[in-house]
Amino acid sequence: MLGLLTPTPAGWIDAALSNFDAVLLDHFHCELKAASNGTALVARYPMFPRLVRTLSDLAREELEHVQQVHDELQRRGIRAHPPGEDPYAIALRKSTQGDTPKSEYGALLDRLSIGALIEARSCERFALLKEHAPTEALRAWYAELFASEARHYRLFASLAEEAAGEELARKRLAQLAEREAEIVERLPLEPRVH
Amino acid sequence: MLGLLTPTPAGWIDAALSNFDAVLLDHFHCELKAASNGTALVARYPMFPRLVRTLSDLAREELEHVQQVHDELQRRGIRAHPPGEDPYAIALRKSTQGDTPKSEYGALLDRLSIGALIEARSCERFALLKEHAPTEALRAWYAELFASEARHYRLFASLAEEAAGEELARKRLAQLAEREAEIVERLPLEPRVH
Repeated sequence: MLGLLTPTPAGWIDAALSNFDAVLLDHFHCELKAASNGTALVARYPMFPRLVRTLSDLAREELEHVQQVHDELQRRGIRAHPPGEDPYAIALRKSTQGDTPKSEYGALLDRLSIGALIEARSCERFALLKEHAPTEALRAWYAELFASEARHYRLFASLAEEAAGEELARKRLAQLAEREAEIVERLPLEPRVH
Repeated sequence: MLGLLTPTPAGWIDAALSNFDAVLLDHFHCELKAASNGTALVARYPMFPRLVRTLSDLAREELEHVQQVHDELQRRGIRAHPPGEDPYAIALRKSTQGDTPKSEYGALLDRLSIGALIEARSCERFALLKEHAPTEALRAWYAELFASEARHYRLFASLAEEAAGEELARKRLAQLAEREAEIVERLPLEPRVH
């Protein structure tokens, strides 16, 4: 699915449903990180007009999702707290170190590829949540988010191709997808989005 | 104006109009920093529900402004580049070091107070630009941004009062406003928003 090389381990959905409040709190911070990452890319790479336009749109959409998750946290009476570590994102970023392509926009290519993979993995897990989340309203909401993450995956992949050329971008994304698969298989199953 | 203790030096508007492209490019990065700062505050202090709601709205609005400034940069054929140093914001943040109030949310109080002062100073300068910017369309646009910055000033000030109590928040804002005035009088006049 969307270039991912391994499905989410079978036990993840049970871990998620065992503490759905924790999943929502992690989801809240995932949306914030996505908004923050989109904004940071616009600031660092404003010489790409399509990137500026599309990633500032993306950041605004992620902030709308932040508010939706926050509404759900409030309905459930959950007091949010600052984020803990994000082992998945840390491992993924670390996996690029040492062989970032040496082209002019190699660092941008890696950031966009990581962005694409995170969106793809979220999308794949929201596909499970749109079937199994505990209420009808939540299942409908995850169906919307699923579609949004799929769009975002395609956006990051196409921005990577624009910045680094189609051949190099596809090659690098496939290479990082292998590392992403190893990370997903290695990390413990926990009630969080990633 | 809005708690500021010194007006912008008389020569600033001439410096700004002498290189309006540079002002726009700085403005682009100011809006991005404001969006990024709002998002970061939501992530760090999600235990304040009103802060989450209002600052995620603020970040979305700032991202809309990012797109508006970017449209104007494109109309003028200006190729944007990553931000340089921001001596005003750096000096302002540095000015809080050493005597941040020791209450539970002292660090938050300082971040919100700095936010309020930056919005107030932008507002004051947009009041000059809404009179003197080079085209009618730009003057109308700065009039809108002027109103928006004034709202944001009041929002930051009220969130500070909510987090730290009215008395402490007002006292700290007045203290930091003194330091802000010194910084504004000390910095060279350049074609930038701050």
